Amino acid sequence: MTDKLDAASLRQRLAALPQWHIEAGDAAIRREYLFADFPQAFGFMAQVALHAERLDHHPEWFNVHRRVDVRLTTHDAGGVTERDIALARHADDVHARLVRDPSA
Amino acid sequence: MTDKLDAASLRQRLAALPQWHIEAGDAAIRREYLFADFPQAFGFMAQVALHAERLDHHPEWFNVHRRVDVRLTTHDAGGVTERDIALARHADDVHARLVRDPSA
Repeated sequence: MTDKLDAASLRQRLAALPQWHIEAGDAAIRREYLFADFPQAFGFMAQVALHAERLDHHPEWFNVHRRVDVRLTTHDAGGVTERDIALARHADDVHARLVRDPSA
Repeated sequence: MTDKLDAASLRQRLAALPQWHIEAGDAAIRREYLFADFPQAFGFMAQVALHAERLDHHPEWFNVHRRVDVRLTTHDAGGVTERDIALARHADDVHARLVRDPSA
């Protein structure tokens, strides 16, 4: 759970998270989320924050208006671990529940 | 309230907000906040988010663990306005209430 994923494992995990991309040097994974408005964007952040606190594994993130950029890495491991993959999956689930119709 | 502050007015306002600094070109003001931990940092963000939504004026911000970097600007005015100064004051108030002893 806390070992750095090797290059092949990381790419295999990301195949199931197509909207995430790998940072140069495999140091982290990133995704940009777009929401309907600021309340929806911050609602997403609040839900992910509670989950992150429960996991004791936190995102690096930037928000402006309805956009949230998320960067996940495990500092202790010096790269991406299964903890980041789990948090990415959770964030995608929260996003999917909030944005029922992504074209809206 | 929504007119861009001229260089002299902006510097006058910032004199009362000593921990904020002016971005190159007077495009925005910035401050970095440090909290005890992630829950306190996110609690700060939640309080500022609610106030920002009420003002209909939102920050650009980045969070990692117990750090929150805030950037304020008024896009419609092409620079810093009284709305940014008001939001900066509010954020400082929330921070001061949360962090009773900044040396802790």
